[in-house]
Amino acid sequence: VRIARFTDGSEPGFGVVEGSVEEGTAEIAGIAPHPFGPFSFTGVRRPLGEVRLLAPVLPSKVLCVGKNYADHAREMGGEAPARPVLFLKPSTSVAGPGDPITLPPDSERVDYEGELAIVIGRLCRDVPPERAFEVVLGYTCANDVTARDQQSADGQWTRAKGHDTFCPIGPWIETDLDPADVALRTTLDGELRQNSRTKLLVHDVPALIAYMSAAMTLLPGDVLLTGTPGGVGPMRADQTVAVTVEGVGTLTNPVRAR
Amino acid sequence: VRIARFTDGSEPGFGVVEGSVEEGTAEIAGIAPHPFGPFSFTGVRRPLGEVRLLAPVLPSKVLCVGKNYADHAREMGGEAPARPVLFLKPSTSVAGPGDPITLPPDSERVDYEGELAIVIGRLCRDVPPERAFEVVLGYTCANDVTARDQQSADGQWTRAKGHDTFCPIGPWIETDLDPADVALRTTLDGELRQNSRTKLLVHDVPALIAYMSAAMTLLPGDVLLTGTPGGVGPMRADQTVAVTVEGVGTLTNPVRAR
Repeated sequence: VRIARFTDGSEPGFGVVEGSVEEGTAEIAGIAPHPFGPFSFTGVRRPLGEVRLLAPVLPSKVLCVGKNYADHAREMGGEAPARPVLFLKPSTSVAGPGDPITLPPDSERVDYEGELAIVIGRLCRDVPPERAFEVVLGYTCANDVTARDQQSADGQWTRAKGHDTFCPIGPWIETDLDPADVALRTTLDGELRQNSRTKLLVHDVPALIAYMSAAMTLLPGDVLLTGTPGGVGPMRADQTVAVTVEGVGTLTNPVRAR
Repeated sequence: VRIARFTDGSEPGFGVVEGSVEEGTAEIAGIAPHPFGPFSFTGVRRPLGEVRLLAPVLPSKVLCVGKNYADHAREMGGEAPARPVLFLKPSTSVAGPGDPITLPPDSERVDYEGELAIVIGRLCRDVPPERAFEVVLGYTCANDVTARDQQSADGQWTRAKGHDTFCPIGPWIETDLDPADVALRTTLDGELRQNSRTKLLVHDVPALIAYMSAAMTLLPGDVLLTGTPGGVGPMRADQTVAVTVEGVGTLTNPVRAR
């Protein structure tokens, strides 16, 4: 199922998206208390077009991996490292579908990086790869927005990747997906800029969950970013960026000057 | 005042520490709902020795600066950078006073790094240095525990500094402190290993708050680590590390093999 967070003007809540987005018949049915345990339907039901979708989860942490597609590692001037290189984005960087990505005034170049994101379903640590899928709630699209000039200036990537709005996720969490080989595409103003498949991940989803959960405890709602393929590039104000993960959906965000 | 989090066996809560720890007359008086707004006393009052102190806050993020004392930058083989180098520790790394620091099995060298920590009192962004103290709730001691071998192997510092228990903070938040020039000391099994003063910070407290809040929104309870002075070194299982900030108190943690 597709699990979203939404507001119809009152308190934000979780909901299940039913019907077809393409055919315009999609509706959202409210659930409570949350999707990380048993939940029930609240009785609220709205046409999807009449609610505002929010980031589908508010993660305690967003744990990411760098250079996890060989073509992106090459375009950054190196090779994919033998071990995953981990970094964090702060929860304050999370934005929802449709939310503007705000360009910080102190960067000259802000890039999109389309990615498959994993949403963790339960507290876990030291998860063996063969049990990795047991701790996954589902998958969503993410944009690991990066101030490229700050990334190279700082060495550490925290500031470059940590600005407010630099982690759009959404539009919802798809719980029924085999992430082994799905298409991942990023468009800028409708032009295809990244076009890859998750089978090209250097470290695949089970390997990443095993490695990340050996480094630190993962909590329900934590979001793991799996890396971006080749084709990264800059965004300018008033452009629109969209990340599509096959089987999940499309995350679209406008870009705005601050 | 000194604000702590504690449990006497029931629900954890915040409290104010009164009296003298040295003379054994200290007591903790429960407050509710929390210290980030108006609070009242709950009527609970216990001798400090009869409660368990917890990490004084559960931060949404721990935002840190590297190489912010010149002598530490030198011992790491470089110079203090002109701009602060930021990195994040995950909330899962936070531990309380007395909690064991657990050595991960995949590191050969885990170092202490004693630091002054700032606890943010309210949501803020783009704080000018001259108004920085308005967003501070208070100060505590922190240990930016670091798997030194992983730090150099990874390049990015997230894994090396992000393991569970790698961010002890406490024992409480001192709200009445001028952080401009206080002593900062770290001992290992009682032996003095770090001995500096905050006047030697390359980027001082107002400058750090300004820089960090320009990079991302800070939330109430967020913890900012200000950097460690020279003298870092490894800890082994069954040793005890203590970080003292003059005017705040001493944060003591045993070290344990996992």
